[in-house]
Amino acid sequence: QLQAILSSDGGGNSLNRETFRQAVVNTLERRLFYIPSFKIYRGVAGLYDYGPPGCAVKANVLAFWRQHFVLKENMLEVDCPCVTPEVVLKASGHVDKFTDLMVKDEKTGMCYRADHLLKDFCKEKLEKDLSLPVEQVAEFKHVLAVLDDLSSEQLGAKIKDYGITSPDTKNPLSDPYPFNLMFQTSIGPSGVSTGYMRPETAQGIFVNFKDLYYYNGNKLPFAAAQIGQAFRNEISPRQGLLRVREFTLAEIEHFVDPDDKSHRKYEEVVNLEFLMFPREEQMAGNQAKKIRLGDAVSRGIVNNETLAYFIGRVYLFLTRLGIDKERLRFRQHLANEMAHYAADCWDAEIECSYGWVECVGIADRSAYDLNAHSEKSGVPLVAHEKFQEPKEIEKLVIAPMKKELGLEFKGNQKKVVEALEAMNEKEAMEMKASLESKGEMEFHVCTLGKVVTIKSGMVSISKEKKKEHQRVFTPSVIEPSFGIGRIIYCLFEHSFYMRSSKAGNEQLNVFRFPPLVAPIKCTVFPLVQNQEYEKLAEQISESLTGNMISHKIDVTGTSIGKRYARTDELGVPLAITVDSASSVTIRERDSKEQIRVEIDEVASVVKEVTEGQSTWADIQRRYPAHSSTTVDE
Amino acid sequence: QLQAILSSDGGGNSLNRETFRQAVVNTLERRLFYIPSFKIYRGVAGLYDYGPPGCAVKANVLAFWRQHFVLKENMLEVDCPCVTPEVVLKASGHVDKFTDLMVKDEKTGMCYRADHLLKDFCKEKLEKDLSLPVEQVAEFKHVLAVLDDLSSEQLGAKIKDYGITSPDTKNPLSDPYPFNLMFQTSIGPSGVSTGYMRPETAQGIFVNFKDLYYYNGNKLPFAAAQIGQAFRNEISPRQGLLRVREFTLAEIEHFVDPDDKSHRKYEEVVNLEFLMFPREEQMAGNQAKKIRLGDAVSRGIVNNETLAYFIGRVYLFLTRLGIDKERLRFRQHLANEMAHYAADCWDAEIECSYGWVECVGIADRSAYDLNAHSEKSGVPLVAHEKFQEPKEIEKLVIAPMKKELGLEFKGNQKKVVEALEAMNEKEAMEMKASLESKGEMEFHVCTLGKVVTIKSGMVSISKEKKKEHQRVFTPSVIEPSFGIGRIIYCLFEHSFYMRSSKAGNEQLNVFRFPPLVAPIKCTVFPLVQNQEYEKLAEQISESLTGNMISHKIDVTGTSIGKRYARTDELGVPLAITVDSASSVTIRERDSKEQIRVEIDEVASVVKEVTEGQSTWADIQRRYPAHSSTTVDE
Repeated sequence: QLQAILSSDGGGNSLNRETFRQAVVNTLERRLFYIPSFKIYRGVAGLYDYGPPGCAVKANVLAFWRQHFVLKENMLEVDCPCVTPEVVLKASGHVDKFTDLMVKDEKTGMCYRADHLLKDFCKEKLEKDLSLPVEQVAEFKHVLAVLDDLSSEQLGAKIKDYGITSPDTKNPLSDPYPFNLMFQTSIGPSGVSTGYMRPETAQGIFVNFKDLYYYNGNKLPFAAAQIGQAFRNEISPRQGLLRVREFTLAEIEHFVDPDDKSHRKYEEVVNLEFLMFPREEQMAGNQAKKIRLGDAVSRGIVNNETLAYFIGRVYLFLTRLGIDKERLRFRQHLANEMAHYAADCWDAEIECSYGWVECVGIADRSAYDLNAHSEKSGVPLVAHEKFQEPKEIEKLVIAPMKKELGLEFKGNQKKVVEALEAMNEKEAMEMKASLESKGEMEFHVCTLGKVVTIKSGMVSISKEKKKEHQRVFTPSVIEPSFGIGRIIYCLFEHSFYMRSSKAGNEQLNVFRFPPLVAPIKCTVFPLVQNQEYEKLAEQISESLTGNMISHKIDVTGTSIGKRYARTDELGVPLAITVDSASSVTIRERDSKEQIRVEIDEVASVVKEVTEGQSTWADIQRRYPAHSSTTVDE
Repeated sequence: QLQAILSSDGGGNSLNRETFRQAVVNTLERRLFYIPSFKIYRGVAGLYDYGPPGCAVKANVLAFWRQHFVLKENMLEVDCPCVTPEVVLKASGHVDKFTDLMVKDEKTGMCYRADHLLKDFCKEKLEKDLSLPVEQVAEFKHVLAVLDDLSSEQLGAKIKDYGITSPDTKNPLSDPYPFNLMFQTSIGPSGVSTGYMRPETAQGIFVNFKDLYYYNGNKLPFAAAQIGQAFRNEISPRQGLLRVREFTLAEIEHFVDPDDKSHRKYEEVVNLEFLMFPREEQMAGNQAKKIRLGDAVSRGIVNNETLAYFIGRVYLFLTRLGIDKERLRFRQHLANEMAHYAADCWDAEIECSYGWVECVGIADRSAYDLNAHSEKSGVPLVAHEKFQEPKEIEKLVIAPMKKELGLEFKGNQKKVVEALEAMNEKEAMEMKASLESKGEMEFHVCTLGKVVTIKSGMVSISKEKKKEHQRVFTPSVIEPSFGIGRIIYCLFEHSFYMRSSKAGNEQLNVFRFPPLVAPIKCTVFPLVQNQEYEKLAEQISESLTGNMISHKIDVTGTSIGKRYARTDELGVPLAITVDSASSVTIRERDSKEQIRVEIDEVASVVKEVTEGQSTWADIQRRYPAHSSTTVDE
């Protein structure tokens, strides 16, 4: 019901969204899917534990990710440390640019995110001050729209103009200044070697490019992958489980020839059709539309086949986990959102009670990262394409005559040599012509800050034909990056529903997890407390363990209806009730339908359904229905 | 061969050990099992990446750990953050005690572990100075034996006495001082909230005890488990892959009634027999001996059944991974190694080229951790045992009369009240007797530092019989803690061997991983480069992917023998060679024997062997042998 309200509602009705969220979050916390970390010490904002069922869901999601991406695509998985030396993150740009703007309460020193304060102020004005003049309404709406693009100075000016003060004390605030979001530490005992907890796992892959390329037989394309913890020291974490200070990322770096971004398996995704939200549609104020992936590529909406292939694979991944495909869209980055080097970028956004949430980013980052690390480390991170037969290539050769230049320019010789060598083709050919016709030429040497005269005999300039055996280039990288915690949280919201108890006096919570994701695959209940049934339950439990099926026995004397309700709340797909000496009933969570199965077949039936070889409907056809529902149901 | 030398050698022949280690480590690094992290930036001591095959081995080991422990025992797995606030690690003792003693080069500031310098000095003297007088030999040997027990002052004195200087510069050294091995950071932007990267995963479980106990239906015993990264900012990492600054731990905290440490499944391990090294045998200078686990318990060598159960399960875990049971021993901690609160502690030690290495610690930590967090947080971390019927218990009741005490002692009233309430039974009964007979009694109040006179009417003391419905107690915890990286490294050494190539001109490297551990389960080779065979290889690859079997295709024109050698070096158990249009050969890595199998049966045969349903011998019985070995083999 709440969901119906939610999905029919474009986002305006925040009260219902919050009621729904509270119902989900209460269930999640009560059943230990999540626990605020270090709770007995009052916790730390932005840190959460996964309790037993949450941890099992996470393990299932990661196992499926490995299967769906690493195994299916033969990716090279690596596992790098979280502690990262400064030089790596200097090269990647994180040390200089991974910042949020912060303001401080000038008296207490409390810190706030500058954009949050401005956002809250504008929103409150718009919501509460109904007498606001039209121009002001327009102004506040404009500020909200461009919030992410405001510079430090612009943010500071707005905060001053609007007279925004510290929300807790009403004290004046400092000007905004950048706060680096990396957790900083020190490696080793000397205190001089700065390190950071990695903000993403990708850099560990980039710095290993050379070895991985070699491992792959010096062939492109190939993909490397990594699952691991990443860290972000948020100024003031909000949005509960969506914005946390430590989280699990699963990242893929697919390295490809920039001149050939086709994909071998592109045909497998070409007919998928789902909600896409191209840049142009966003600018025009339209909604996301269903587009066939193949059309998006042929119409030039998605930049290339490889990018499209991963968009398609991400769609399959998320929907197989149980994400509602009507509340999943792929949104293209606007020009101003995208880094200058990026060729194209799409986010898989999932709608939940917080609105549309970015859960997977799929970016064509071109050669940016490899170039940055090549430059900083001095180790060329490049690929080679061997030509079938050598190609003839004309090459400019500039050979300064060091002896002659030395005699003429003495101590300045080196700088003149360097300037000559740095000439581009046009400059060099002009000089060649001038030297041949006039015997000399005026030449500006930047590093000396003056013009010198170059005479013939001081430099030899020629064009030589050379046979090249290979092309050397920096690969482009296409990066699908998965925020595992966000995906799981959205999955919880999409899987949650409430239904009335049989007596109608209670609302019961259910998670409709697919078996793939379900933290526990089945429960085993003796119908009544007696030794015979408990022994049979034990026996079934052992055969389930033997089949590697995670399950839970509940031998409490609680009514069977209550036990079903408990297990529905954990999203357990099947419940086995031992109610005779030879056979049991198996109940499916969502339909509440039951079948009767012999005891020695139980484990294999559960295995078939939970491992996906058969559906519940298949199984129902093979086994008799059990209709005598118990009193409690 | 090297292994034979190694295992027949008690530890003296360090040269052969190092040759062997070099052969293993070279292979591991060349095939990217490991990569020194951030290699293009010259790396960081003590940080390593797992490259593709290493990462796959690690994933397999962790999956098996989950199966063998979490699933089989229905443990509650949790997943807590690495970033930990100071208060938690203050309570656990890590802020004050997780230190190593360090000395600094007084001129350059370079840091060294004090015990390392002393150890190196003594070892070098003993090895190189053959003219050393007997007393000196005895002294240096003694120092080596007690190294771990030396205090900061004792270490400093020895370093001064022996004139030990900085190994790099020969400069004088500072006195030893403690260096905390936790990576420190700051949580949030204010800079006032200190955090550390966790040194172990256990604390995340302890602080959640209350919730987990509730989740388990308020029943003991139960176990919680966690797999995750832990951090240790080593002063100067040595021993390559064994002592690193970031590593994966897998920890179990089994909570049990201190009055009943029996284990439900104890019978399953009671007949296991393996190398144990009890405290007494170590003190007597003996070797580890094979002991039946049941005997170790009944003879009082192992403290209790639960501890023994886990020792047995750890033995099964390690040997199933491929650890050689002749080079695995369980060593009991000596009295001086064990924390004062520990009831008993055993390390699973694996012998490798570095000697015996602690890989798993199995400790009965009694109630220490839960008590520490109860005290610090004020939240009682206790269990309850409900009595079948209420028990009658005599309880001392001391009731100070606050009004009377106030009139008499004014501002000191509160301290007198507290002192009265703090009396033990004996003191209270004496006072009761005295007040009844004499009407008053002299009473020493520590907090006031003086004696006061207590008169009858100021306090009522009585013994009351009370019905108790439950017993409240702090559970003991038995903790098996696995250093996953160390286990994997030892596994690499135990799995490695060399054999001659067929031509006899080359030594080839092989890892004899069991299929469970093998990073890649099989390889697919077209015998010669032609379209038909390559297409068949692709087809086989697809059916392997469909069966979730990790594999690798090698379509290079390299000789089949070289391709076998490459794959043996990665420890791939089976190699499929496509040499006809209808059937292929499957070759087993260690025996090099081959069978012939129809193409459409290949995937199921590989699945059977690699998932452990059949052995290679079983399969050999069912399929014809293929004897025409190729020229290269």
